[in-house]
Amino acid sequence: MSNHTAKQIHLISRPSGMPTKANFQLVEVELPAPTGGEVLIKNLYMSVDPYMRGRMRENAVYAEAYALDCVMYGGAIGEVIESADPSLQAGDIVLNGAAWQDKFIAKANTVSKVIPFDPEQLSLYLGTLGMPGLTSYVGLFKYGEHKEGETVFVSAASGAVGANVCQIAKLKGCRVIGSVGSDAKGQWLLDECGVDAVINYKTCGDISKALASAAPEGIDVYFENVGGDHLQAALEVMNPYGRIAACGMIASYNNAEPAPGPNNLMLIVGKKIRINGFIVSDHGDMRDQFLSEMIPWIQEGKVKSRETVFEGIDNAVDAFLGLFSGENFGKMVVKLG
Amino acid sequence: MSNHTAKQIHLISRPSGMPTKANFQLVEVELPAPTGGEVLIKNLYMSVDPYMRGRMRENAVYAEAYALDCVMYGGAIGEVIESADPSLQAGDIVLNGAAWQDKFIAKANTVSKVIPFDPEQLSLYLGTLGMPGLTSYVGLFKYGEHKEGETVFVSAASGAVGANVCQIAKLKGCRVIGSVGSDAKGQWLLDECGVDAVINYKTCGDISKALASAAPEGIDVYFENVGGDHLQAALEVMNPYGRIAACGMIASYNNAEPAPGPNNLMLIVGKKIRINGFIVSDHGDMRDQFLSEMIPWIQEGKVKSRETVFEGIDNAVDAFLGLFSGENFGKMVVKLG
Repeated sequence: MSNHTAKQIHLISRPSGMPTKANFQLVEVELPAPTGGEVLIKNLYMSVDPYMRGRMRENAVYAEAYALDCVMYGGAIGEVIESADPSLQAGDIVLNGAAWQDKFIAKANTVSKVIPFDPEQLSLYLGTLGMPGLTSYVGLFKYGEHKEGETVFVSAASGAVGANVCQIAKLKGCRVIGSVGSDAKGQWLLDECGVDAVINYKTCGDISKALASAAPEGIDVYFENVGGDHLQAALEVMNPYGRIAACGMIASYNNAEPAPGPNNLMLIVGKKIRINGFIVSDHGDMRDQFLSEMIPWIQEGKVKSRETVFEGIDNAVDAFLGLFSGENFGKMVVKLG
Repeated sequence: MSNHTAKQIHLISRPSGMPTKANFQLVEVELPAPTGGEVLIKNLYMSVDPYMRGRMRENAVYAEAYALDCVMYGGAIGEVIESADPSLQAGDIVLNGAAWQDKFIAKANTVSKVIPFDPEQLSLYLGTLGMPGLTSYVGLFKYGEHKEGETVFVSAASGAVGANVCQIAKLKGCRVIGSVGSDAKGQWLLDECGVDAVINYKTCGDISKALASAAPEGIDVYFENVGGDHLQAALEVMNPYGRIAACGMIASYNNAEPAPGPNNLMLIVGKKIRINGFIVSDHGDMRDQFLSEMIPWIQEGKVKSRETVFEGIDNAVDAFLGLFSGENFGKMVVKLG
């Protein structure tokens, strides 16, 4: 067995405001052969996700902070190249938390073997079938508590999480309004995902007015991915006893100075609104139920997935940065293998 | 039976910003004698409460808007003077929703007879034993879900609601930190109510820093009566999975122009925080349980009540306006009888 060279992306300084390529460095390391209980894995796809921005802060509260001058990490799917553990063998496909590197050595019990339902769609395990898909499912069912016939508003609606929220809510009999940053994304939601109305927040003018117009009977659930003026609009148009599943607030992630919040928070009291911040990693207990619904939905064409694929670990930082300028259409992944 | 003259306070214009006496008018009306099913009631005490400010808006969302040029309404406790209904007789004490007038005619089934546990403390039925007390109880138990040993932060902590929240939370084994606007109020909370620490928000400087210092282990529950910088501080110092029972946001009630919200709302996601707006009128089902705990607490001296009493309906508007300048120490009531 020969040694391998791995390419890793390290965080070398903490961004203030929008990250730049100077915050990251590509580092090559030599990997030894795996020994007792270890496996050598070649990552085929890695995920870049907005939440990773929070991990670049020293005082990260959502998920543990990335250490400086170390490889970052996150969701990836790879193939076992060499195994020194009986539970895995070369060729096995494994989900792992070791993104931001193209190869790595790990204890076999820190990765999860998957039997792909379609070997051509491995990257789905980082999106619709992975963390973002489960996030959508948990947010809607556990915190949105949407009921048939209700109206659901989704921000970042064509994103990795948002597009699943839209489609699941439609499958469950809701009226769905999505906010997006381009007409092409909006058209895809309307044509392919069956969303009832879309708002292009970059061109609609006042989002509250656009939402009120798209939801003349008000909204009952808001799936929050953006914050700021989207949250303000949702509060404005929300019906009494509305629920907000707060998954993220990407509008604020790169603020060097914090921006003020909505000026209508008193509506939380007035309308008896519930807001739940949540993180998907608390809800692994819902994964089996999620997969049992989602895999058939994908196979039957009821849930569609868009992906934006960057090629090669050298472009992983660009892929990540693109999340904040809306370059991704659907799930952003980096193809490594 | 003679006719009676009633004094009523009418809303004659909708306030923009802080209300003034010019928004209200004292009107005298002649009342007929009660007839079939009616009673004539003399109010002994009426309540003034911050939430009434919301009812003065044309687009009230929390509770129905007051009509212009009509008597306002709200909680009061009175005595039956004449009855034309077999269920009530002269001398009966009744809770009613017909504040802002000293006498009125009502259908007997629209008022609730009470057997006062102490006839000298009738005004308690507008405070600790009434709507504000039940609000405290519902907010803490149903939405705060405080557990023994947790830390509870209460804003407007010496107010009608806040003082009960503080004392109930202490009785249930929590550490309690209250925010108040005067040192005298803070001292009362410390000395009489057993609160563990107080913050005078007018003199403490940065509320977030003061709260962090008073709660070195963070807060688990925030009982929100104020909004603005108090909400920002609570989010900043809150522990993961903290709960916010959003009862009111008095800081914003008299803003002619809406003020921006906290700049740290992303912490709702990061800390997996739950916020529940609520209104006590949804929770009448908890009243019996509430009274079964609260009456003994009062009788045993475990829950203390402070009141600020204005005399006479001519001073009811001043009493109401005083709520927004902190003139009340505890529950603000107007003695009418």
